[in-house]
Amino acid sequence: MSAEDTVVAQATPHGLGSISVVRLSGKNSLKIARRITKEKRGFVDRVATLRSVLLSKKKEIDRSVFLYFKKPNSYTGEDVVEISCHGNPFIVESIITLCCKNGARIAEPGEFTKRAFMNRKLDLVQAEAVGDLISARSKDAAIHQNKNLSGFVSAEITNIKNSVMKNLSSIEFELDISESDKNLSQNVNNYRKDIKNNILKIRSILSSYKMGLAYTSGVRVALLGKPNVGKSTLMNQILKKERSITSKVSGTTRDTVSSELVVSGVPVTIIDTAGIVESKNPIEKEGVLRTKKEIDKADIVLSLSAPNIEEVSIGGLKKTISVYNKIDSLKEKPKLKNVFYISALKGEGVKELMNQLEKIIVHKNPSTNSTINNLRQYESLLKSSKSLSRAGALLNEKPLFEFELVSFELRSAIDHLEVFLGKITSEDLLDRVFSGFCVGK
Amino acid sequence: MSAEDTVVAQATPHGLGSISVVRLSGKNSLKIARRITKEKRGFVDRVATLRSVLLSKKKEIDRSVFLYFKKPNSYTGEDVVEISCHGNPFIVESIITLCCKNGARIAEPGEFTKRAFMNRKLDLVQAEAVGDLISARSKDAAIHQNKNLSGFVSAEITNIKNSVMKNLSSIEFELDISESDKNLSQNVNNYRKDIKNNILKIRSILSSYKMGLAYTSGVRVALLGKPNVGKSTLMNQILKKERSITSKVSGTTRDTVSSELVVSGVPVTIIDTAGIVESKNPIEKEGVLRTKKEIDKADIVLSLSAPNIEEVSIGGLKKTISVYNKIDSLKEKPKLKNVFYISALKGEGVKELMNQLEKIIVHKNPSTNSTINNLRQYESLLKSSKSLSRAGALLNEKPLFEFELVSFELRSAIDHLEVFLGKITSEDLLDRVFSGFCVGK
Repeated sequence: MSAEDTVVAQATPHGLGSISVVRLSGKNSLKIARRITKEKRGFVDRVATLRSVLLSKKKEIDRSVFLYFKKPNSYTGEDVVEISCHGNPFIVESIITLCCKNGARIAEPGEFTKRAFMNRKLDLVQAEAVGDLISARSKDAAIHQNKNLSGFVSAEITNIKNSVMKNLSSIEFELDISESDKNLSQNVNNYRKDIKNNILKIRSILSSYKMGLAYTSGVRVALLGKPNVGKSTLMNQILKKERSITSKVSGTTRDTVSSELVVSGVPVTIIDTAGIVESKNPIEKEGVLRTKKEIDKADIVLSLSAPNIEEVSIGGLKKTISVYNKIDSLKEKPKLKNVFYISALKGEGVKELMNQLEKIIVHKNPSTNSTINNLRQYESLLKSSKSLSRAGALLNEKPLFEFELVSFELRSAIDHLEVFLGKITSEDLLDRVFSGFCVGK
Repeated sequence: MSAEDTVVAQATPHGLGSISVVRLSGKNSLKIARRITKEKRGFVDRVATLRSVLLSKKKEIDRSVFLYFKKPNSYTGEDVVEISCHGNPFIVESIITLCCKNGARIAEPGEFTKRAFMNRKLDLVQAEAVGDLISARSKDAAIHQNKNLSGFVSAEITNIKNSVMKNLSSIEFELDISESDKNLSQNVNNYRKDIKNNILKIRSILSSYKMGLAYTSGVRVALLGKPNVGKSTLMNQILKKERSITSKVSGTTRDTVSSELVVSGVPVTIIDTAGIVESKNPIEKEGVLRTKKEIDKADIVLSLSAPNIEEVSIGGLKKTISVYNKIDSLKEKPKLKNVFYISALKGEGVKELMNQLEKIIVHKNPSTNSTINNLRQYESLLKSSKSLSRAGALLNEKPLFEFELVSFELRSAIDHLEVFLGKITSEDLLDRVFSGFCVGK
C-alpha cells in the first residue's frame, strides 16, 4: 500500500440520521477539504469549523462541521479531516464524489485502520480489535475488545517478550565470552524459572481463546425435535427468561426461525428448527436437509422429547443436551440422569436448563484478564509457548552442550510473539486481516 | 417543553460503522460529559479531545472523541457535547445509558431541532427543512432542502413581510394624523403597486409547491396490464435507461415489486403490479384487490395493452398514460392519438415514453428559486395572498371609507407570513412538525 494517496469514505453507518461523517486521510486531506469548500481559510488542528460544501460556485450541497486532526496525532497517523454533514445518503455520496474529483480515492475496506497500523498507531492485535469491536454483539464483547484495542493484551505479551529477550541476550553474551560451561550452569536455574513462568503466562492467555471466540463469534444453539414436542414454546420461554434480547440491534437476524439473546455477555443465537420447513411426507426431504444443516452449524443442540414423542436422531459429535418436555402432563416424573425435565408451557425446569447452557457457553478464566479471540493470535502464541517448552526441555538435558539450541528456540519464541503483535508480518496476512473490515474503518 | 433538562440521543444512523456520534444538549451537558469520563479537566469550545468513557472506576467501554459546542453557538443554541465513539450499537447504548444515569434523559423525536427552533437558531421553515433534508431521496431534493435550511425561502418571505409592514405602518400613520382623505389617496397607487407585487411574489412561491412536493414525497408510477402484456420487460427497460437508480441507498424499498429511480431530481417509485399476486382464478380476488390498492396509491398509471391483449379497466381519476406494447410483432403500427407505441423488448419508443413521464413529473418554476414543500407552508402563504388580494380589492373601491379594513387585511397577511416562518405558532403545531423527525435530530 502506498500512503502517497489520500483516501475518503463514510465513517458512520449507512442510512438516515441527524449526522453522517465522511473521513479523509492522507497528505492531501487539507487541500481537498479547502477545495470542496472553495475557501482559502486554513483549518486549525482539532478545532471544529462550520463550512459550506459546494458542488459548484453557487451550488451548496450542505453546511458541514469540519474537524482537522494534524498528523501524527490522528487515528491513522496521517492528516485527517472529518466532515460531519447532515445524515442523508445523497449528501454523503455527493461529498465523497466531490472529494474524489479533487484528488481523493475511495478507501478500501479497513484501509484507515491499516494505515494506522502501518504508521505504528496500533499494533496488529489492536487493529484486529477495531474490527471486532465494531461488530461486537454484546456489551461484554465490546468491553473485551476495547481492552484489546487499548493495548492491554499487547502490553502483557510485550512484557513476556522482553523477559525472553533478557534471557536470550544473557545466554548469547555468555556464549560469546565464556569458553567453559561453569558460569552458564550457574544461571541455568534462573533461565528455567523465567521460561516456566513465561510458558504459564502464555498458556493462561491461550486458555482465554474459547471465551474470546464465544464473545466474538457468538454461540449457536439449535432446538431439535419432532413436531409438537414444544420447540417454539421452549424458545419463547427462553426468550422470556432472558431479558437482554438483542433484537433491537440492527443487523441481527430477524426471521422467525432464530432469535438473539445474550448469556453472561456471550451473544447466543437460538435456532428453532421448527421454523425450518417440516414435512410429514417422507419423500420431500427438503426440510430434513435444512434441519441437518442447522444442526451442523450449531455449537449446542437441545434435543427435545416428550411423552410419546421420541428424540430425533440426527447423529453427530455435537454437544447435545437432552430435554424431556411436557412433564406437566405426567403424574410421575421419569428420572434419567443427564436429562433435563421441563414444562416449556409452565416454565418449570427452564431456569435449570438455562444454567446448564450457561455453564457450557461461558468459559471463565480467573487466571488472566487478557483475552484473545482469533486463530491467528492463538496460533502464534501456541507456537511461541512450544518454542519455550523446547528451550526448557533443552535446559534440563545433560550435558549442556545444546546451549546454542536453547538460544535458537528462544529466538523463535520471540519471533512468534512479534508475529502476534504484528511486528513481523506479510502483505498477505495484512490483506486477510483488513479485508474483513467495513469500508470507512 | 422545558429546556431545563439535558437530552441525549444517537445522532448518526443506527447500525455498525467506524464511528457513531452520541449528542448531549442542555445546561448539564458539560457536567455529564465530565462525569462519564470521571475527569475534572474541562472542555474547550469546539476543540476535540480523546477521553475514556468509564462504566465504573476501572471499566472502560470506549475511548471517544469529545467535541464541545458552547452555547449559543451550537446546533440547538444550548451547550452541546458530541461524543464520537466506535460505531457499535452496544457501545452507543452504554454511553447513552451512562449519560442518563448522570442526569440526561433520552431526547424525543426532533427535540434537538425543536430546541434550535425555540432558541431562534432556526425558523420553522428551516426546522422543517432539516427533517426533509435527512429523508431526501435524491441529490436535487437534498440541494433544495439545503437551500430552505440555509434560509433562502425564509429570507424571501421576510422581505415580503417587511414590505407589507411598511405599507401597513404608513397607512396606520396616515389614519392617525389625517382627518382628510386627500393625502391618503395620493399614496394609494403606491400601496396598490406594492400589494400587487407582493401577491405575485407569493403566488410564484406557491406555484413551486407541486415541485417541492415531488422532491420531498416522490412520485409513484404503477404499471398496469394483463398477464404477458410486458410489464416486467418495460420495467427493466425503464431501469436500464435511467442510470441513477437509488437501489444502493439503504431504506429504499427492496422487494421485487417496486424499484426506485430518479427522474430530473425527483425520486420516482415504479410499481410493477405483476409482482402483486395475479390469479387466473376469478374467485380469488386477492391479487386484483392489491393491484387496485396500488393504483389508488399511484400518482401516474402506465396502462399497458398489446396485440390481442386489452387494457385492464380499473377506472378512476388517475393520471393515466396508455401504452401499446409489442409493436415489434406488428407489420403496421396502429396510430391512435395519446397512445405511446413501444416495444419493451427492443426498447423502441421507451425513451419517448420516459420523456412524457418526465413532463408530467417535473413542474419547472422558472419564476422563483424558492421552493416550498409542505401543506402547512402552502396554506399559510395562500391565506396571506388572499388577505393581500382583499386588501388590493378594497383599495380599488370608492369611496375609500374602508381604509381601516385595508389595514386589517394587511395585518392578517403579515400574521400568515409569520405563521409561515413560525413566529406565530402553537404547541400543537410544533408537536406535529417535530414528531415526524427521527430521535437524535
